[in-house]
Amino acid sequence: MEQKRLSRLEQQMAFAGELDGLKQIGRQTYLKDASRKENDAEHSWHLALMALLLQEYANEPIDLLRVISMVLLHDVVELDAGDTYAYDDAGNATKRERELAAADRIFQLLPKDQAKSFRDIWDEFEAAESIEAKFAHTLDNIQPMMLNAASDGKAWREHGVRLSQILGRNEHTAEGSGQLWEYGKEQLISPHIQAGAIIDDTKSGGMEKL
Amino acid sequence: MEQKRLSRLEQQMAFAGELDGLKQIGRQTYLKDASRKENDAEHSWHLALMALLLQEYANEPIDLLRVISMVLLHDVVELDAGDTYAYDDAGNATKRERELAAADRIFQLLPKDQAKSFRDIWDEFEAAESIEAKFAHTLDNIQPMMLNAASDGKAWREHGVRLSQILGRNEHTAEGSGQLWEYGKEQLISPHIQAGAIIDDTKSGGMEKL
Repeated sequence: MEQKRLSRLEQQMAFAGELDGLKQIGRQTYLKDASRKENDAEHSWHLALMALLLQEYANEPIDLLRVISMVLLHDVVELDAGDTYAYDDAGNATKRERELAAADRIFQLLPKDQAKSFRDIWDEFEAAESIEAKFAHTLDNIQPMMLNAASDGKAWREHGVRLSQILGRNEHTAEGSGQLWEYGKEQLISPHIQAGAIIDDTKSGGMEKL
Repeated sequence: MEQKRLSRLEQQMAFAGELDGLKQIGRQTYLKDASRKENDAEHSWHLALMALLLQEYANEPIDLLRVISMVLLHDVVELDAGDTYAYDDAGNATKRERELAAADRIFQLLPKDQAKSFRDIWDEFEAAESIEAKFAHTLDNIQPMMLNAASDGKAWREHGVRLSQILGRNEHTAEGSGQLWEYGKEQLISPHIQAGAIIDDTKSGGMEKL
């Protein structure tokens, strides 16, 4: 191997090593059996798998490789910024600033061309404007909903989550996949309003709001 | 949503939920900081990320989406069969049979068309004949090597791993990427022979064999 090539590969392997840290960034979502919470690496794998599995439900034809690239990388900024729980208002107020600083540091570990192409993938996810980014966000919302529902709403109960918060959080979920959002409302959210895991603060019986 | 569609989606969501179990299938490889061992979901995410990162080193042009699909799914059989350590001879003698039974059960959870397409992806990985499968196997060998090297050879030391075992295990690693195998030998294996983490049983000074 010639020297220049080796040095490029060394940078890339250092990046792969740095991202190993995502296995230690905890999320608020419990595994399906509620035994413990999942981490960012596990979550990202689950989203990539679900992109492959559920691509047919995207509202428009998607570039699947682009979606998968986004979900594999979407949480790398949490290496520095940590995971901000969806319903942590204080944390979410500073989230964007903290994550931008993290993106600046982390992607610069890569060779210049790849620093740009990976940053473009992350920026596209964050902007949530392309059909690929919209579908990636839909998955990023449906996956924890699936796990919360499977674990009897444990995370919802612990955080005292209200229906209005869930509906706000999912304001754009239907933009990536109307069908997955319908499924989420009917199969994942509604039963847990009735079971009391989600507090219905909509004063309209919950079901009507959905 | 019409009934047929819902039923298909329910099957797919059940599959996504079933695979959550991969977050609890432990491997023998330590995280980079050696604090704990990684699991199959984390490992699969790391491989998918490395496929995106290192695609330029494949010996031939590859279909990256196919490689990523393989690494996302390659360990699903371990839900039933468990992880078999690379240097566990007894375990490896029955591994293929146990994993085939697992594949038969797990992929049948999917709608028929997807059961076939996902099983095809797994079979292709297992056959290790296509350039995509060869590259996926290269990543599957290089990633734990990277973590073992980063954690001062902790897993190698614990299992008393010998150089001949590593060379045997990596007999085909260069078929996916000659450059990654060169890197692995020079940067990941050699220094740990010298440091004593890998037992040199090749009677040739180790370095020459590499």
